[in-house]
Amino acid sequence: MSKERLIYLPLGGAGEIGMNAYVYGIGEPGKERLILVDLGVTFPDMDTTPGVDLIFPDISWLEERRDRLEAVFVTHAHEDHVGAVSHYYDRLGAPIYARAFTANIARKKMEERGQPEKAVITASPWPEVIEAGPFKVGFVPISHSIPESAGLVIDTKLGRLVHSGDFKMDTDPVVGEAFDEELWASLSEPGGLALMCDSTNVFSPHAGRSESSLGPEIESLIAGAKGMFVATTFASNVARVKTLAEAGERAGRSICLMGRAMRRMIEAAVETGVLTGFPRTVSPEDTKNIPRENLMLIVTGSQGERRAASAQLAQGKYNGIEMKPGDTFLFSSKTIPGNERGVIRIMNQFSEMSVDVVDDDGGRYHVSGHANRPDLERLHKLIKPSYVVPMHGEHRHLREHVKLAKSKGFGAVLAPNGTMIELSGESPSVADYVETGRVYLDGNVQVGALDGIVRDRIRMALNGHVMVNVILDEDDEPLGEPWCELKGLAEEGSSRAPLVDVLEEDLSQFLGRAGDKTLTDDDKLEDGVRKVVRQVAQAEIGKRPEVTVIISRLTN
Amino acid sequence: MSKERLIYLPLGGAGEIGMNAYVYGIGEPGKERLILVDLGVTFPDMDTTPGVDLIFPDISWLEERRDRLEAVFVTHAHEDHVGAVSHYYDRLGAPIYARAFTANIARKKMEERGQPEKAVITASPWPEVIEAGPFKVGFVPISHSIPESAGLVIDTKLGRLVHSGDFKMDTDPVVGEAFDEELWASLSEPGGLALMCDSTNVFSPHAGRSESSLGPEIESLIAGAKGMFVATTFASNVARVKTLAEAGERAGRSICLMGRAMRRMIEAAVETGVLTGFPRTVSPEDTKNIPRENLMLIVTGSQGERRAASAQLAQGKYNGIEMKPGDTFLFSSKTIPGNERGVIRIMNQFSEMSVDVVDDDGGRYHVSGHANRPDLERLHKLIKPSYVVPMHGEHRHLREHVKLAKSKGFGAVLAPNGTMIELSGESPSVADYVETGRVYLDGNVQVGALDGIVRDRIRMALNGHVMVNVILDEDDEPLGEPWCELKGLAEEGSSRAPLVDVLEEDLSQFLGRAGDKTLTDDDKLEDGVRKVVRQVAQAEIGKRPEVTVIISRLTN
Repeated sequence: MSKERLIYLPLGGAGEIGMNAYVYGIGEPGKERLILVDLGVTFPDMDTTPGVDLIFPDISWLEERRDRLEAVFVTHAHEDHVGAVSHYYDRLGAPIYARAFTANIARKKMEERGQPEKAVITASPWPEVIEAGPFKVGFVPISHSIPESAGLVIDTKLGRLVHSGDFKMDTDPVVGEAFDEELWASLSEPGGLALMCDSTNVFSPHAGRSESSLGPEIESLIAGAKGMFVATTFASNVARVKTLAEAGERAGRSICLMGRAMRRMIEAAVETGVLTGFPRTVSPEDTKNIPRENLMLIVTGSQGERRAASAQLAQGKYNGIEMKPGDTFLFSSKTIPGNERGVIRIMNQFSEMSVDVVDDDGGRYHVSGHANRPDLERLHKLIKPSYVVPMHGEHRHLREHVKLAKSKGFGAVLAPNGTMIELSGESPSVADYVETGRVYLDGNVQVGALDGIVRDRIRMALNGHVMVNVILDEDDEPLGEPWCELKGLAEEGSSRAPLVDVLEEDLSQFLGRAGDKTLTDDDKLEDGVRKVVRQVAQAEIGKRPEVTVIISRLTN
Repeated sequence: MSKERLIYLPLGGAGEIGMNAYVYGIGEPGKERLILVDLGVTFPDMDTTPGVDLIFPDISWLEERRDRLEAVFVTHAHEDHVGAVSHYYDRLGAPIYARAFTANIARKKMEERGQPEKAVITASPWPEVIEAGPFKVGFVPISHSIPESAGLVIDTKLGRLVHSGDFKMDTDPVVGEAFDEELWASLSEPGGLALMCDSTNVFSPHAGRSESSLGPEIESLIAGAKGMFVATTFASNVARVKTLAEAGERAGRSICLMGRAMRRMIEAAVETGVLTGFPRTVSPEDTKNIPRENLMLIVTGSQGERRAASAQLAQGKYNGIEMKPGDTFLFSSKTIPGNERGVIRIMNQFSEMSVDVVDDDGGRYHVSGHANRPDLERLHKLIKPSYVVPMHGEHRHLREHVKLAKSKGFGAVLAPNGTMIELSGESPSVADYVETGRVYLDGNVQVGALDGIVRDRIRMALNGHVMVNVILDEDDEPLGEPWCELKGLAEEGSSRAPLVDVLEEDLSQFLGRAGDKTLTDDDKLEDGVRKVVRQVAQAEIGKRPEVTVIISRLTN
């Protein structure tokens, strides 16, 4: 019998900020019992994933070993940690553990997709632990930009692991548990192996600030505003929503929450008891009876999402409410890289309406939910692990985090997605490389990132699309002229005649010249037609379009 | 005879940072003689303009009045100011004036597109002026991030206008003329009318810094680097290229310039005498004989452009040169909003190669070429115009700039693209609204932004594309089964059969049920087929694709 080992394998999240999925295993090589920490999504963009609805990590490796999977642990309710749980439940079948607020959100997701809500089990915080096969897992409260975020203590007979989850060190987080230095220091254990640690803000040089520092600034901004005041932030940032609402209330305004996600999150926070003392709100209908200068809306859409409340207000109306000159709109949020265009579009639309737009203004109206560089160092020192394994970051974040840990005398290992690390040896070592990737939710179908479907969409978008219809009679002779349809292409090019006419003319000549070898062979015929279309289009309009050839052969 | 007036009409640039095109006119209403200041491009993106090569302002208004157009004045050689000159020359036909460096670049563009180089006329700087009909126009040197940038003094019998061009107030710009406060103060004239003023950095609160402040910081960064050192910046920022090259030389490295645009710009700067004393460079071939630690490359691609040198180095090789672990890559540049994803992709690719990436780091290795808020105020005070007309900005920049000017006691007017302002009245007033827009260069064809071509591409990218082929015989009866081709769609949906089979089956049933009214009417038949396809696709895969129906009718 070979020696047991302890392994770590990120399937997602260690190579992007998004779609977190971290596997831990203990046992004989190839027979390890497994747990999964987090199962999140990432979001598509037009450049690389047009038309896609959501992106999941590829969990094929884990699915093939589902008989060895003991449980899934979800650290908190952000989409990049919990978003894929309901989509993958039927492929993994393991129980899902989370703290009350997170479990509440997860159950709603399960319900929406017709999955069993009871698969989600509410966990109590550390020092209580969940036994999952050979693992004992405890949820350790930690501050973040959503209620009840938790790090995990993962105890095994080969040693203790600490998984930070997403975190910041906020001793006054407005909603939820404050960062408890003593508690986290108590997790340090001689012989403790590794700290898997959030890397998001490793490039931010200054210590993070507390959520509670924002209230006075926001209140004074609201107090100085003349018309209606509207603020947006992440709906899941319940503390921020409370900070905003309280500042508005103190400034003498009635508060109205708008956007489905916003109301859903606040509801979950109230249901689970993590949010208390939230100011009284009014419904969108009631706002009609309130003078604008006494009104404050808190709305979804801080990232410029096209269908969210912010975007709709910027285009006209939302829930019957309209922005007017002299109103103020606050982005109490940071723009995630890649979302700039959408956010700027909204800012300009508001500008055209003479609405004053205020953004985070270098931190006056927003603080990050992630630990900055000095905070990361502090956590390393509290846990004193044998080594740090950076996670939750793009490659550059992970690499920088390794450098940071090493510069302070800690061991550290770079483990991007697919790198299986053996944690239990003398020093951490790469045990295997596993193929990882992405799965797209497209409409209601899961498609592989490499299936070529999205590649074809991108090509149609870049090159346009020509469809050619060729009908051949019983003797393999062309019946009538070939017929072309264009989509996404200029109608006329250099010869000043309709492109479709030039194409049909040249295709007709091509078919006239084509011998039996070509006319009787669909592949040859298609190749020939495609070549003619591309040559003609290149000459006429300077583009090489995608070509679909439909050949119909009449039979007796 | 009605009274003469002086007008200003932005056709581009006052609503975006890009595609600048500002019309000035003087004369009786409707008979004004006209000049155009700048004729630039803006760049496409996948979200809104997939497959498009360049974006131009729509100049239809000006083209219809080309008999009244005296000349085009180009303030500097950035693409958003000079990029459309050669594409539109045949539609406007007016002579193009620019200073030597700008004229050199413009002539190269004319040559490339087979347009007459002699249409570009080199202008000497102010106090010399060019008489263009009723206008006297002088090029006033001003510092910017490209050599020989100029503001314009536009003298007319109805008063003086000052057009700032793009500018910063740099008294030590490394290459080109320093900002000359006395010169600019001398342009102020009692009765001077308006200052048309760059708005790009109106949200940047601190006074701008000098190009010359960067050299020592960059040198010390290079001196501390162990392997090869590579820096990227805008090729047109000749001063920065020189700053980088000199810092590299002082740090004992041989300099190699890479990327076509980089070599072209340096060549133009040397040819026109604006660049002297540039360090000796080596060719890409010669770099093979130089130890990596003695080598510095200066390359194109600071915005993550896919085909530029940076992106190619990040993917493997460029000109036979490869990055290796321990090399350093510096972005001596700012990422323009919207380009973040491309830049971050390159950063992560370098991280995977163990190359250290350094970015502008809050200004240590980059300064902007545009005047910040305090600098804008300073220019207002130097020129003392009757009013400020903000230009070169998105709507939010223009609006903020108006507020800034007004807060300091200046008149100011918000004039987005298409707003014709009469400048010569008691106070500026809106004389007309002109329809403006965008024209896409797509391959080698100019297409209107509203032609629907790009909209169709976006739809294919988001929704996928189904093509249906229906053949009807001489009696309008379906001949065989309808035939479907899919592009950009999942192959299989909820019924676990190929989507194409389900579509063909349901279409076959539809055709079987269809009466003569449908079968004999192409429009009705097409509508019916489209509906079936969308319903089936929605049910099977949760998407409503684009549908192209090709109906072939056989005749005797």
